[in-house]
Amino acid sequence: MTNEVVTAAMLAIGDELLSGRTKDKNIGHLAEILTATGIDLEEVRIVPDEQDRIVEALNALRERYDYVFTSGGIGPTHDDITADAIAKAFGVPCEFDEKAMKLMGDNYAARGIEFTEGRQRMARMPRGSVHIANPVSTAPGFNIGNVYVMAGVPSVFQAMLDNVIPTLRAGTQLLSRSVNCPFGEGTIAVPLREIQAAHPDTIIGSYPKYENNRFSTELVIRARDEQKLIAAETAVRQMVEQIAASTNVQ
Amino acid sequence: MTNEVVTAAMLAIGDELLSGRTKDKNIGHLAEILTATGIDLEEVRIVPDEQDRIVEALNALRERYDYVFTSGGIGPTHDDITADAIAKAFGVPCEFDEKAMKLMGDNYAARGIEFTEGRQRMARMPRGSVHIANPVSTAPGFNIGNVYVMAGVPSVFQAMLDNVIPTLRAGTQLLSRSVNCPFGEGTIAVPLREIQAAHPDTIIGSYPKYENNRFSTELVIRARDEQKLIAAETAVRQMVEQIAASTNVQ
Repeated sequence: MTNEVVTAAMLAIGDELLSGRTKDKNIGHLAEILTATGIDLEEVRIVPDEQDRIVEALNALRERYDYVFTSGGIGPTHDDITADAIAKAFGVPCEFDEKAMKLMGDNYAARGIEFTEGRQRMARMPRGSVHIANPVSTAPGFNIGNVYVMAGVPSVFQAMLDNVIPTLRAGTQLLSRSVNCPFGEGTIAVPLREIQAAHPDTIIGSYPKYENNRFSTELVIRARDEQKLIAAETAVRQMVEQIAASTNVQ
Repeated sequence: MTNEVVTAAMLAIGDELLSGRTKDKNIGHLAEILTATGIDLEEVRIVPDEQDRIVEALNALRERYDYVFTSGGIGPTHDDITADAIAKAFGVPCEFDEKAMKLMGDNYAARGIEFTEGRQRMARMPRGSVHIANPVSTAPGFNIGNVYVMAGVPSVFQAMLDNVIPTLRAGTQLLSRSVNCPFGEGTIAVPLREIQAAHPDTIIGSYPKYENNRFSTELVIRARDEQKLIAAETAVRQMVEQIAASTNVQ
């Protein structure tokens, strides 16, 4: 059985994420959805609304990973420069998309709202793009090559992503099990390293938590093979039980 | 008057951020604190716990920005590889730091806890590093060159950052004002672009919100010069009032 690995990166675009004014919610959401789908998110970058920076980051990521997902910068205002930057990265013109113009024009007309020059800007996309449907507010995202360009507003990003996911090639899902460990990492580090060494086809992660002036640890075992996953999880659980027993000695 | 610009990047390290298991809280916190300090956060990358990926990203960022802040991977377990990766990036050995060994040894001894091999691992750092004090759990972060290496647990990251900030060179603070606009971006895009063009030394950002099936917009004006900031803010407020007046016509 081969374990196919499909990789992805995310490029979050926006000055507001770097100033701290907006706390990103799309990275964590994309990460969860991709993990559940069987696609490995391997890198995230956040860059400002500057064309050169977007082009440079996008070209680095789209060469390296199977898929790239972007968020932000596809609205109607002057600081929405993502469509132009993506077009530049692909070396194609950014132009009004006829289908998008019709879709949006019809939608605004039905609502009695003027299809202003600003709103028309949202119909611009790199030549050759395919729409990503936007059930929330009509103006579509787009896919070109291995790049999926979506809105920054979380409800719109999530709705667009729901439409993209079924079209993607997925790999063998990375399965995971979690073990809550009531001890800090200093207590478990040595035996845990031995378990990792004995189970090389698993990835054992140790995530410290600090609550009520006490450290505890969440131990996460990941593998693409379920038998190997269970074997490593069993070893981790036994380690935690042994430490608990030894610290209960009278 | 010169407006000095000091730049920074963040490198968040950890498989758990890319799997979606942990939602990062450090990026937004660092962004806020740096903005308040007068340091411009210009890029963020998230990479997995893999030495080559950490080295590559760190070297790209530390050459380009005045400061680089990292989070994660400095605990005692086998997946904590940040100290080794940073040492490799700087081409120096990663070794047990005498001061850290004493500090931590004394602390554990006072609490009657064994200073295990695992815990000693947290005293390893690249040769030439300076400690970043950790008031929460003793094991220090470290600074080497223009890189500040801190813990991933948010309470520890924040405490370490509080100790780092006063030691940094700050630039002229980017001031900001925010205007709540009850209209969607499609309504304001054209006049807002004209305001941006008329106020070139300001950065006007437009951040759409979608709540209760309605779009509204937060308009943020940023500048290093207060007079220019106020002039642009006044123009933005007048635009919003004019649109409100024109849509109230009977």
